[in-house]
Amino acid sequence: MSLINGEAGCTIDISDRGFQYGDGLFETIEIDQGRLVFFDRHIRRLKEGCRRLQLPLDDFCNLVAEAENAAKDVVRGVLKIIVTRGTGGRGYRQPDSIKATRVISIYPFPNYPEIYTHNGIAARVCSTRLGLNPALAGIKHLNRLEQILARAEWNDANIQEGLMLDADGNVIEGTMTNLFYVINRQLHTSEILRSGVAGIMREIILELAESNALVLSKRYFSIDELLNADEVFVCNSVIGLWPVTQIDGKHFAVGPVTREISDWFEQYKKEWLQAC
Amino acid sequence: MSLINGEAGCTIDISDRGFQYGDGLFETIEIDQGRLVFFDRHIRRLKEGCRRLQLPLDDFCNLVAEAENAAKDVVRGVLKIIVTRGTGGRGYRQPDSIKATRVISIYPFPNYPEIYTHNGIAARVCSTRLGLNPALAGIKHLNRLEQILARAEWNDANIQEGLMLDADGNVIEGTMTNLFYVINRQLHTSEILRSGVAGIMREIILELAESNALVLSKRYFSIDELLNADEVFVCNSVIGLWPVTQIDGKHFAVGPVTREISDWFEQYKKEWLQAC
Repeated sequence: MSLINGEAGCTIDISDRGFQYGDGLFETIEIDQGRLVFFDRHIRRLKEGCRRLQLPLDDFCNLVAEAENAAKDVVRGVLKIIVTRGTGGRGYRQPDSIKATRVISIYPFPNYPEIYTHNGIAARVCSTRLGLNPALAGIKHLNRLEQILARAEWNDANIQEGLMLDADGNVIEGTMTNLFYVINRQLHTSEILRSGVAGIMREIILELAESNALVLSKRYFSIDELLNADEVFVCNSVIGLWPVTQIDGKHFAVGPVTREISDWFEQYKKEWLQAC
Repeated sequence: MSLINGEAGCTIDISDRGFQYGDGLFETIEIDQGRLVFFDRHIRRLKEGCRRLQLPLDDFCNLVAEAENAAKDVVRGVLKIIVTRGTGGRGYRQPDSIKATRVISIYPFPNYPEIYTHNGIAARVCSTRLGLNPALAGIKHLNRLEQILARAEWNDANIQEGLMLDADGNVIEGTMTNLFYVINRQLHTSEILRSGVAGIMREIILELAESNALVLSKRYFSIDELLNADEVFVCNSVIGLWPVTQIDGKHFAVGPVTREISDWFEQYKKEWLQAC
């Protein structure tokens, strides 16, 4: 059961623009002992996404209260928020009066093995590319066919993530994660200016790197540069941080910088939850 | 009221991947005296889209029968088909067992003034670009945020269409139409290999040009080339063909080649309907 505009339900009007055109946004948030982890950051990103898509969501206060209430008795889980431009007639033109739709759903926490966090995962390079579109880059919007096609490229349960290049061949991110690599103790991650999702974990890791004076570079890089890295890891709000120990057969160690960042993050999260 | 998997209804499960990710396709078909105009071509494109998105739709026969039945008593209208990958858990990975969702809806025929067809329309160049993605180009899929952002750029009722460039600056199409131009009696339209929708009207016009020995060029072109044209027109399955007589203030005549193609098309449609 979900909450749709504050009411319990499990269906949406087929004229909803989220269904008709993917005209909306989403957030996926970890629930830890009834608390929505980094909720402030998720709400900030959602607001920024609404601003960029010109999607007026008047009910932010309701949304926040509903999400907090839905999560409060959940020990461990995932809360997903979907916000769409609401119902509207046929055609791309927005209705003159927009009443956004908000959907809140709770999912079980995915049972990823602990070993992924400690010993790392295997990744592959996907052939499906990310299109270049500055107007949509960074936003966690509902147009996700690129990720779906990329995720459909493999069925091997020993591969946990697929890495996606943009149309120009730059390595941008994983299908469901952001990507970092380390070389000579310098941290690198892609810019998210023309494609990709500006992840909350990515944002936190960038801040932690800065506050811990780790040399950091945000720029575009090729697959060859990535494969020359000393350490590679991926991250998102649900999995946290996973070292990548294999990319298409090339091996990487779970390195000291990855361990360090992971420790900084665990400490940061602990403090955030205590202050919550 | 719509038909959802053959049953009358107006809601969809929120776990439907069409709503969660825009994971699906659509077709928009003119209804003329109970007949679905160029239905064979729409079904062919839908099948091709399903193949490219690896979306198994076993119920094509049901879909066809339901659409024909829904249209049979409609004098004039629009039938929209949406096909999605069905319900599924959280995450981009497809469910192991996919049961596609099919939605059939009837809309009133839009009341565009006849003058658009005869005297032409005004267009503007949008600043929202089309991303480059060969894996999605041509498909009439449900990821339509680019068109929505482009259509949101203007509110002037005197402008009927917005033209969209791709990330490299090539003029590709209108927000809801395909685009052609004529110079020295040669017909030009963009390739649809890296972005854009392969429209049914576009397909028919290309065939008519060929069978009438009109010199035809499918290639990428710039806005400057377009503005140097003798004639410009846009088309889709609902509007038919509209001459473009203004682009951002630059004027074009409704030219003889456009008139000729329009006549060929009317004749072709008449014959198609008679044979239907």
